[in-house]
Amino acid sequence: MNFSNRITELLNIRYPIIQAGMVWCSGWRLAAAVSSAGALGVIGSGSMYPEVLRQHIQKCRAALPEGTPFAVNVPMLYPDIDKHMEIIMQERVPIVITSAGNPAIWTERLKTNGIKVIHVVSSVKFARKAQQAGVDALVAEGFEAGGHNGREETTTLCLIPMVRQAVEIPLIAAGGIASGAAMLAAFALGAEGVQIGTRFAASIESSAHQGFKEKIISLQEGDTELVLKQLSPVRLVKNEFYQQVKQAELRGATVEELKAILGKGRAKKGMFEGDLVEGQLEIGQISAMVNAIQPARQIVEEIWQEFKQGIETLRQLPI
Amino acid sequence: MNFSNRITELLNIRYPIIQAGMVWCSGWRLAAAVSSAGALGVIGSGSMYPEVLRQHIQKCRAALPEGTPFAVNVPMLYPDIDKHMEIIMQERVPIVITSAGNPAIWTERLKTNGIKVIHVVSSVKFARKAQQAGVDALVAEGFEAGGHNGREETTTLCLIPMVRQAVEIPLIAAGGIASGAAMLAAFALGAEGVQIGTRFAASIESSAHQGFKEKIISLQEGDTELVLKQLSPVRLVKNEFYQQVKQAELRGATVEELKAILGKGRAKKGMFEGDLVEGQLEIGQISAMVNAIQPARQIVEEIWQEFKQGIETLRQLPI
Repeated sequence: MNFSNRITELLNIRYPIIQAGMVWCSGWRLAAAVSSAGALGVIGSGSMYPEVLRQHIQKCRAALPEGTPFAVNVPMLYPDIDKHMEIIMQERVPIVITSAGNPAIWTERLKTNGIKVIHVVSSVKFARKAQQAGVDALVAEGFEAGGHNGREETTTLCLIPMVRQAVEIPLIAAGGIASGAAMLAAFALGAEGVQIGTRFAASIESSAHQGFKEKIISLQEGDTELVLKQLSPVRLVKNEFYQQVKQAELRGATVEELKAILGKGRAKKGMFEGDLVEGQLEIGQISAMVNAIQPARQIVEEIWQEFKQGIETLRQLPI
Repeated sequence: MNFSNRITELLNIRYPIIQAGMVWCSGWRLAAAVSSAGALGVIGSGSMYPEVLRQHIQKCRAALPEGTPFAVNVPMLYPDIDKHMEIIMQERVPIVITSAGNPAIWTERLKTNGIKVIHVVSSVKFARKAQQAGVDALVAEGFEAGGHNGREETTTLCLIPMVRQAVEIPLIAAGGIASGAAMLAAFALGAEGVQIGTRFAASIESSAHQGFKEKIISLQEGDTELVLKQLSPVRLVKNEFYQQVKQAELRGATVEELKAILGKGRAKKGMFEGDLVEGQLEIGQISAMVNAIQPARQIVEEIWQEFKQGIETLRQLPI
């Protein structure tokens, strides 16, 4: 008998594990590999032009048995959002994960088109708004997550029970989760699924540059930090580019100065082109525990096995 | 049959729950109430002159049935550390929890005197050093914790499995834990006990000012932040004093300027004297989920019941 809860039923997946949509890391190959393994694969559209997104959707579908679910992640503040959404509806993508924007704008139209909608939040306030907008489920993402993040700096351990208490819809935990033990911790806090980024960013099928993957698995504790809080908070590897940002922040740089240092194309340069010095390398704190570049299927299966073992261990507590 | 694991056996307590030693909040009344409830009560010596500490130890012992364990927390960077340790040994305190300093200096002498030693760390690096120094157990405390904190900003969800992997001695999780659900999450990550501060700071028996207790239970998400990272990182309530610090940091203030703003006696002013405007109010992120001023015994019993219920819920997962 397969495991079943509100997340597996809503998304029609075997394991309540969602691969995070990540700029420059999660193209169709990763999404197809994860969905093929029984979890939910997600194409990260934030780094794609509209027609590139269409190709990724078509290739992902072609690589999977008919009807296998997959999703597209859409950061809603991006300029091409209208075109992205049109393509998603034309291509009949079954699930959309929206982030960084107002869920009230697109949720109804997507749902009318038969698309399940999940929204990513970093606070209770936005969780309530998303539920009100009618989304089917939430991803609540804590401070330890890689890439862009909330201003409240609420950690996953604090955020999940707070959101669980505030809303009724199914809840997926994100941030700091790369193992079955952390998945079990998230379930203990009230989550019904987990979203995992960092470990999949370093997978074989990730579209990240090989140099960035090797960097990820070499990271130790304290090797990432949430910076650029005056613009949009983002967790980065502490490389030379980070040092420039950090020094500017310590001397009291203005928003304009920070924008000038950031410039354009830093994320692509770092994560896709492999410039580990001058590039913007987005990754989560839990990279300190990711020590191998593995196939996505193996990641899914290992996490699920650990999750089951963890439950068994708790079952045996003398209580 | 009572629950039993390495922490309950080491400390001779019924529940693997440790009340955090907190400046201006945890005197003998709180420690005695917690120990009397079957968890470990801790006198926070960081805000006490040596002879005041002696009185608290004696009153705590007198309030408890003979042989009931309790502990003293000693921040090792404080000037009176030698006198504190002498008194602790003279008074035959059964357990010492050291923090903010090198565990190699005092551990052996305390243990020779029959005292169990627990050391608080915020990183794997310091966890390894503490194990090497011969401490009996560790508290690993994440970024979300109140008061002074580590520079790596590692959250509890990331820190606990990292420390678990690195050392063999018993491990107590701290930071973001105020419920049985969070306690269960910590156990899923490999902890064998939890240390709880924020919820006990707001307890009836806490020596904090009533105004501070009421402030704690009114806090919402995003109402605390880790600041003063150039001096010694500390998580504070975002009151007017915090705003002065924050504005200074944003304009690139030097360490000297920050020290001048901080001045002396801010923590006492805020937490003990109840100056919620100009005082330094140290509390954890999880204050957003602490909504009542309760007796310490009730806190211990509620957390334990929730922990047991959480295990029961996981046992019933269709897996």
